[in-house]
Amino acid sequence: MDLGLLYSGGKDSSLAALLLEEFYDVTLVTATFGVADAHEHARETASVLGFEFEAVELDGAVAEEAVEQMVADGYPRDGIQQVHLHALEAVAEMDFDAVADGTRRDDRVPSVSRAQAQSLEDRHGVEYIVPLAGFGRGAVDSLVEETLDVTTGPSERIAKADYEAELRALLAREHGEGAVAEVFPDHTQTYVTGLR
Amino acid sequence: MDLGLLYSGGKDSSLAALLLEEFYDVTLVTATFGVADAHEHARETASVLGFEFEAVELDGAVAEEAVEQMVADGYPRDGIQQVHLHALEAVAEMDFDAVADGTRRDDRVPSVSRAQAQSLEDRHGVEYIVPLAGFGRGAVDSLVEETLDVTTGPSERIAKADYEAELRALLAREHGEGAVAEVFPDHTQTYVTGLR
Repeated sequence: MDLGLLYSGGKDSSLAALLLEEFYDVTLVTATFGVADAHEHARETASVLGFEFEAVELDGAVAEEAVEQMVADGYPRDGIQQVHLHALEAVAEMDFDAVADGTRRDDRVPSVSRAQAQSLEDRHGVEYIVPLAGFGRGAVDSLVEETLDVTTGPSERIAKADYEAELRALLAREHGEGAVAEVFPDHTQTYVTGLR
Repeated sequence: MDLGLLYSGGKDSSLAALLLEEFYDVTLVTATFGVADAHEHARETASVLGFEFEAVELDGAVAEEAVEQMVADGYPRDGIQQVHLHALEAVAEMDFDAVADGTRRDDRVPSVSRAQAQSLEDRHGVEYIVPLAGFGRGAVDSLVEETLDVTTGPSERIAKADYEAELRALLAREHGEGAVAEVFPDHTQTYVTGLR
């Protein structure tokens, strides 16, 4: 069964891929607004982990709206949530039997409700799978330590490969670096460099 | 890392075991009130699937309370929920680093909230993992079809191996077969017979 996993190059979506690979033909899919070339890092990480990779283009208007939402809110949560749902829709429109992401039990955002999950499944004729939904922070950290080599650091120094990096770039371009620091204070990212 | 999975011999907890076995040393644990010998079926299924097996004794007073609750309610939901939480506590008190169960995304019961999960983890110093929490009914059905041989039928004919079978036996003993039919109308069970 062909599964497209929304992929950032980070530890959560990488671990999600490892959990699914025994049961599905997994393709890692990075969603991009074309703002930065961050998805090239995801392509490299996918290759190191031994997975197929595809990039999918998102609607730039969704990025613009999300950035304005984040500036108005002063925090990224609702903007990220909108973009995540849009990205899942984009993967669901590709030619997969199942769609997945790396959301964990303890994530406040993104968060896909049961009703949203069933709607995505029904409208696109796919299964929507969240392999880490039943794993808390401690369990994820232990599994990551056992299975992945990672680098951690501040968002601006770590080349993370997902739409969040592009939203930060767009935010900086339209509202200045100060807006990025305000919306994403002390934000650290993790970048996967290989299998253990 | 040693993980104890609350195990019924049914398809959900069997599939949960298969999802975890690449990452944990999984022991299947069947919780029993000592009312029936149903856990012997779970021991056989565990052996067929190639897993270690243990039985853990539950507090009979919890079964009595659950049966009275179910008779008063006219449906099994809240009684099952109480027993499930009690069974998870019992597994968490054993010598495992992590505790898991076979609850799926679309199950209404048992259902362990995020707060209950974190409480279980903090009090017992374990990770609580729900490998099927991010899998809907369709995804579970597809994976079961690919990986397991199963038999399905009415609860009274299928020798399912968990505390639910014991609660039904206790309900019949104390309130008659009519009470079982009223509390569990048209209830079907699945029993795993092997790997595909």
